[in-house]
Formats: sequence, structure tokens, C-alpha cells
Amino acid sequence: MYTHEDLSALAKFYKKQLLEDTVPFWFPRSYDQEHGGYLLMRDADGELIDTDKAVWIQGRACWLLSTLYNTIEPKKEWLEGAKLGYEFLKNKCFDANGKMYFHVDRAGNPIRMRRYFFSETFAVIAFSAYAKASGDQEAANLARKIFGICLEYANGERKIEPKFENTRPSIGIGVPMIMINTAQQLRETIGDERCDKAIMGWIDTIEKYFVKDDIRCVLEQATPDGQIIDHIDGRTLNPGHAIEGAWFILHEAEYRSQDARLIDLGCRMLDYMWERGWDHEFGGILYFRDIYDKPVQEYWQDMKFWWPQNETIIATLLAYTLTKDEKYANMHKQIHSYAYTNFHDKENGEWFGYLHRDGRVAQTAKGNLFKGPFHLPRQEWYCYQILRNYEKHDKAKSSIYLSSIL
Amino acid sequence: MYTHEDLSALAKFYKKQLLEDTVPFWFPRSYDQEHGGYLLMRDADGELIDTDKAVWIQGRACWLLSTLYNTIEPKKEWLEGAKLGYEFLKNKCFDANGKMYFHVDRAGNPIRMRRYFFSETFAVIAFSAYAKASGDQEAANLARKIFGICLEYANGERKIEPKFENTRPSIGIGVPMIMINTAQQLRETIGDERCDKAIMGWIDTIEKYFVKDDIRCVLEQATPDGQIIDHIDGRTLNPGHAIEGAWFILHEAEYRSQDARLIDLGCRMLDYMWERGWDHEFGGILYFRDIYDKPVQEYWQDMKFWWPQNETIIATLLAYTLTKDEKYANMHKQIHSYAYTNFHDKENGEWFGYLHRDGRVAQTAKGNLFKGPFHLPRQEWYCYQILRNYEKHDKAKSSIYLSSIL
Repeated sequence: MYTHEDLSALAKFYKKQLLEDTVPFWFPRSYDQEHGGYLLMRDADGELIDTDKAVWIQGRACWLLSTLYNTIEPKKEWLEGAKLGYEFLKNKCFDANGKMYFHVDRAGNPIRMRRYFFSETFAVIAFSAYAKASGDQEAANLARKIFGICLEYANGERKIEPKFENTRPSIGIGVPMIMINTAQQLRETIGDERCDKAIMGWIDTIEKYFVKDDIRCVLEQATPDGQIIDHIDGRTLNPGHAIEGAWFILHEAEYRSQDARLIDLGCRMLDYMWERGWDHEFGGILYFRDIYDKPVQEYWQDMKFWWPQNETIIATLLAYTLTKDEKYANMHKQIHSYAYTNFHDKENGEWFGYLHRDGRVAQTAKGNLFKGPFHLPRQEWYCYQILRNYEKHDKAKSSIYLSSIL
Repeated sequence: MYTHEDLSALAKFYKKQLLEDTVPFWFPRSYDQEHGGYLLMRDADGELIDTDKAVWIQGRACWLLSTLYNTIEPKKEWLEGAKLGYEFLKNKCFDANGKMYFHVDRAGNPIRMRRYFFSETFAVIAFSAYAKASGDQEAANLARKIFGICLEYANGERKIEPKFENTRPSIGIGVPMIMINTAQQLRETIGDERCDKAIMGWIDTIEKYFVKDDIRCVLEQATPDGQIIDHIDGRTLNPGHAIEGAWFILHEAEYRSQDARLIDLGCRMLDYMWERGWDHEFGGILYFRDIYDKPVQEYWQDMKFWWPQNETIIATLLAYTLTKDEKYANMHKQIHSYAYTNFHDKENGEWFGYLHRDGRVAQTAKGNLFKGPFHLPRQEWYCYQILRNYEKHDKAKSSIYLSSIL
């Protein structure tokens, strides 16, 4: 079990790591005062290895700075920094049809458009958090407008160019998952009446089509009626991704006054995918697994990436504070200890992104097209918020209430 | 140096591995007598892990069976097996516009179309080798017709849907490389008068735009005028790929009566990329490197894949037989010893595809969407042909002549 003192020490640890280790690695040096946005593609020691800008990460960094301003301290630097990202995203990252790019150069010239709409979902959380921080009505309007576009994509009214032919239709857990979190962020910053119903719909989708109690598994993709696609790609599980989905659902449970059904669903997802993903030999969450333990198409399937560890640290802590089940305290201790021992760069701060299964660093970049100031600072920030609220409410009424997290 | 006895023993080794270890892993069990084509997605012990068919690999397997028939022994099984692939490719793997799919299911229903034309290049080598084996005129006509389509793609007359916006135009070494080999195979089986000029044009392209003597490097991509693209993706080198290109050029040198300029070019490419790719700590050729030793975007960059080792075994042996330079005998010994020690599956035959940097097996599949009976059997077959011809001609006139290889 975690004692009050343990939890208090954990809260202090996450806050200190966030504000004295992770955030200072990125800022202020990454603010691009010349072109706007952020220069985030950095090696372990902070050296800039590319001036290009990944649109996902620009949005995520703007979200982080706005959220720090909203929840930790109204620092002028963070608000001004958030504005750099907001303006860059708004002015440089949309094509003529209003679709967002995936990758642009330093000045914002387009490098690559991708089919899907994840740049848009990160713009929604960035713009809504920035709107709350700045009071900027245009940002709020844009956040709601882009959320509407995301809803159209997610519901199929707006079409995404298909990657596959029609022979073997499939659905993925990625869209309902990301939409739950996008809607939660929008709701809990500037508010939007579309969010509650939509969130509950996506949670139902996940439970109905992707959570398989009989084989203790959360599918990454399925047939449109929720069956296993028994081919290499269809069998591939992504434990860290499913565990991220689990904590989005646990967050919703907390928001809805500790809804018992949602706590049960989120904990089942966490249990199943911890069983599938935890590496009993070296520790940590493995990247991919096959449903039937057959070979996975992706040859790097047994590497350890930073973000599945971050999502598992959040999920286990939230499961513990919601259930007080000792099992989750033990899981949290295991993943926390593994991750801060193996991923944290004691010399330069922040975490390495890519370890081999046995813990050796495979690649030193702190920032690239897919990694930046998001999963790690979000984990440290969110865990600090969980514990701050838990302590406050535990003292008052042995209960917790997190609706004021954001 | 390699003595006559060494080379003789090597020839026997490659022939034995090919015919008693590699080929028997795949055939006859992979012939799909029900739907045509081959069932190649297999685990280490041969268990079928997916019935889907990767179009590249269907073509490559048809090429292998036809080539064994043409050059090793006119076995009825190999010709009948090649016909299964030829018919499946011809009847099931083209869409209504004549473009080839990347991935189909067992019955040939389409799963995925990709933008580029590599399925077509492998169909050309399959159909031309099968036409030579069978005498089938339709196969010969189809090989020439599809080669014409490949020429149109390669020359830009036929457009490929772009992956990137126009901000930062680039060219890749992949197309000229694969086209050299495709044209060589077509020329040396059923013949085609377009090949000679085209091959020399692509070699000139590689020399002019991708080979950088000042920094001892072969670029994987470049600006349209052959400059380095100093961004993460643009800086990425693929040593095994460049070394494969080196031996295509050395093969052309041999074909052209040991053309000194081409021997020099191929050996420079091999030297540069051995320096970039050889792992001094664990042996073998690393997958990706950065031009300036910065982090590579692909986090699995330090893994060892099977095929770069196969291509390096060929390139070093061919460089040695062409130059008699002891350096290449030593390089060949190193890569041969590393690869057969680490990749060969002594229990079940064939090679593992994916090792961690230190030699541990990362994933056990022998066949999947990208691996099948190609790089390894091609290496064993080609090295056997080099040595067979070398021995024959070395005895006769201390020279070699490989134009009868195919």
C-alpha cells in the first residue's frame, strides 16, 4: 500500500521532475521567436538536430504551456510561449481546404500531409487550453470549429482516404480513444455541450468492439462487428496504447463521481494489457504483442518506448486512487521505478525515447517527428494533479474529486 | 587471400546451403495448389502464421524457382512451382488500371495498393525468368510490357502520387538501383534491346547524384541536383541498400568485360558504405546511419536485418573476384562468418530476419509482408554462380567471365 507520506512524496517528486527537469529541457530554448512555434527536434544534450516542425508536437507543446499556465502558475513566459504555438498552428499548419499538415519546415512551408486527422485533435486541445489561458475568443471558436471537423471524421460524415481496399474492413481503437481525450480536454477547459454524449458513445464503442473479456485482451483493431482479424496486422496488440485508453476511461469515471461501471471497465483494460505488455524479464511495457503470441510484423516489437511507460504510470496511479486496491499500488511502484531508472537522462534531464528491450539506449534523440514535450510532462503533470486532489479530498472526506484538474 | 581451395569450398558451401537448407525450408510446402501462388508467411519452424500474400514476395519466389530451373537443374517441380506464381501474379495481382497491388489475400482479393511500382519490377524479373524456363511467349510479352511501364514510372512519364508536398523536392537511390537489376535480369534471360542504354543511364545517375567521394558516402536521397538534404530523414543512410547497388554495378562491370570504371565505382560505393555500416562492436551491417552521426528518426536503426548481410556477402565476393584485392577477401570472410553464425537457424534451416544489434533474435518469422525466399537464396545462388564461373575461367585463362550466370 501507499501511505499518506508515500503519496505526498510522490506528488512532490512529480512536481519537481516536471518543473525542474522536464520543462526546463525544452523551454525557453525551443521558442522560435523568428518564425513562431517551437524548435523541438533535439538530441540528448539539447542540440538542435532538425529545424523542421511536426504539427502534432507543435500542438502538444502549445497545450502543455497553456496547461501549465492554467493549473500550476500563471507565468507570463508560459502564456507568451503558448501564443507562439497557437499563432504558428493557426497561420501555417492548414492547407487551402482547412486540413492540417503533418510536417512543415521551420517557416511553415508544407512538407507532408497525412490522411488522418490527429494534427486536428492536438490543435483542439492546444487551442482550448490556450483560449482558457489567454481569454482569446478566436482561439475558443477555432477549438470548437476544429472539434466539429474531428467529430465529422470520427463519425464517417467526413471521409478519410482509405489505406486499404474493401476486402477486409476493419475498425481501430485509435479514433475513439483520441476523441475521448480531445473531448475531455475541451470540456474541462472552455466547455462544449457536445462532449459528454460523444465521450460516452466512444467509451461504449471501445467496450463493445475492442475489450475481449474471454481472452483478457483489448484489441487494437477489429472487424466492424468486433471480431478478431486473424492475420499478422490484425492480431497486433499495442499494450501501451490500450492502457492510455484505460486511463482516459478512468478519468471519465472520476469526472462522473467515481462511476463504478467505468472504473470497472478501465481497470479491466489496464489488467488485461498489463498482463500482455509487462516484460517479466527486464521490466517495462513492451511495444507490440501478438494476440496468440505469434511473431509480430513490426520487427522492433520488443523495444521499450517512452510513452507506453508514461501512460502506464498514469493508469496505475489513477486505478489505485479510485479503487485503493493494493495491486495497483504495486504495479505503479514497478512501472515508476523501471521507467525513472531506465529512461530518465540523469545528465541532461528529460527521458530517452527509445530503449532496447534490455534497457540499452537505442537512439538518443529527445525530440523528433514523433517525440516532444508531451507524454512525459503530461504524465508528471497529471500524476501531480491526481495526488494533489487526492490529498486534499482524502483529508476532508476520504474521497477524491478530480473535476477541477484542468 | 582466398586460395583456390578456399574458393572451391565456398562454392560447395553456398550450393549446399541453397539446395539443402534454404530452398527446402520453403518448398514444396509453400505451393498453394488451391489458389495458386505461394503461402510464405511462416514462423521459424515453418508454421503458417498468415495466409495472405505479399505481391513483392510472390514475384520474387516465382523468380527464384524459375532461376533455379534455368541455372541449376531443370527440375519439373521448380517449373511447375514457378507456374503457380506466374499465373497468380498475372490473374490476381493487377487492378482494373493495370497497376499491381502490394498485398492480397490467399484467394487474391486485394488488401492494399501502394503508390510505387516495386511489385511491377519484381513481376518483370519473375515473368522473364519464367518465360525463359517455360518458353511461354505470353510471359515474355508480359515481362517486356511491364518493364515498359516501369520505364515510364522511372522516367517520370507515368506519375506516382507524391507522398510529400513540393517544398523540398528530393530524389532517391531506390528507383535507379532497382531498375538496374530489373533490366539486367530481363536482358540476361529473354533479352530486351532497351536494357543496355537504360542501365548505363541509371548508373550515371547514381554516380552523379548519390556517390559523394568528399565525405566517402552514398546518399539514400538527395536534392534533385545531388545535394545533401540536411534534415533528419534526408540525412538517413541505408548502408545495406547502397551496398546492394554497388554489386548491381559490379555485375555490370563484369558483364562489360570487367569495365575498369564500373569496377572502381562499385568498389568505392562498397568501401564507403562498409565504413558507414559495419558494426565494429558486434559485427554485421547496421540498418541506418546518419550522415553526420546524429540520431536517426527510425528508432530501430541499429538492428541487424538479414538482407543487408546477404547483399554485403555478394558485394564483397564480387569485388574480390574482380579485383583480387585481399581487402575484399577479408571483408567477405568477416561478413560471411558473422551472418552464418548469427542469422542461420541451425534447427529449422533458413535465416532469422531480425536481430538486435548484439545478435539476439528480435522476431522469429521467416516469412511476412517483407521477408520471403529472396535475398538469402539469391545470395547463395549468385555467390555459387560467381565462384563456379571464376573457377572455370581462372583455370583456363586466369580471368573470369560471368555473362552466362543467368
